[in-house]
Amino acid sequence: MAACIFCKIIKGDIPAFKLFESDKVLAFLDIQPLSYGHALVIPKHHGAKITDIPDDTLSEILPVIKKVASATGAENYNVLQNNGRLAHQVVDHVHFHMIPKPNEAEGLGIGWPAKQADMEKLKQLFETIKAKV
Amino acid sequence: MAACIFCKIIKGDIPAFKLFESDKVLAFLDIQPLSYGHALVIPKHHGAKITDIPDDTLSEILPVIKKVASATGAENYNVLQNNGRLAHQVVDHVHFHMIPKPNEAEGLGIGWPAKQADMEKLKQLFETIKAKV
Repeated sequence: MAACIFCKIIKGDIPAFKLFESDKVLAFLDIQPLSYGHALVIPKHHGAKITDIPDDTLSEILPVIKKVASATGAENYNVLQNNGRLAHQVVDHVHFHMIPKPNEAEGLGIGWPAKQADMEKLKQLFETIKAKV
Repeated sequence: MAACIFCKIIKGDIPAFKLFESDKVLAFLDIQPLSYGHALVIPKHHGAKITDIPDDTLSEILPVIKKVASATGAENYNVLQNNGRLAHQVVDHVHFHMIPKPNEAEGLGIGWPAKQADMEKLKQLFETIKAKV
């Protein structure tokens, strides 16, 4: 997609520190990192959300994240992929962040407003979703 | 692994709202959800971190997340997988959260302490990691 910054990186029109590349997947360092070693792993197929990416491309992404995480030597790290503005997505081309978490101050900050579910409501939700999977 | 709560769910020793199951992957609803539809997708292979899971199992996970995300109908959602205590991991069996983000108050909270990288340092880091990928 012509206007997409990640498509430009894939094409080589914008330089990047490319860590790994295959026919379907590209990994490179984030230049606005949350921590040392923060990398992005993206499908070459342009699509905004995970639901827009073909399965045979999705299937190649996690092994690449594993490879990159291993190469950074990080002991603690988060893998994050955001879909939609409310969910903190900025670039509308699917990208997985691999973010080392070396200490409390650096890396991804996580807010976790969990609640114990009402089991009856959860069961109803389960039946609704299950019917669509 | 006998003491692992997710292995017990896989074996059926602990009940769960199972949304999808294959030979290698299981998806079920989180009972302490951050939002309505919060689901977990896990490999059946026991391992604490992504680097502990075989590639042929990892490759099946994202297509299942896609399936589950699609079934919930969420427009905005985060996919998160934590490795290590510092990175917010609690259960030491790899698990991917699919967390709908319906509004600011519910779903995953994200802290993003990004800094523009020193490009010379980033280049050195790149060469170090690239040599290990």
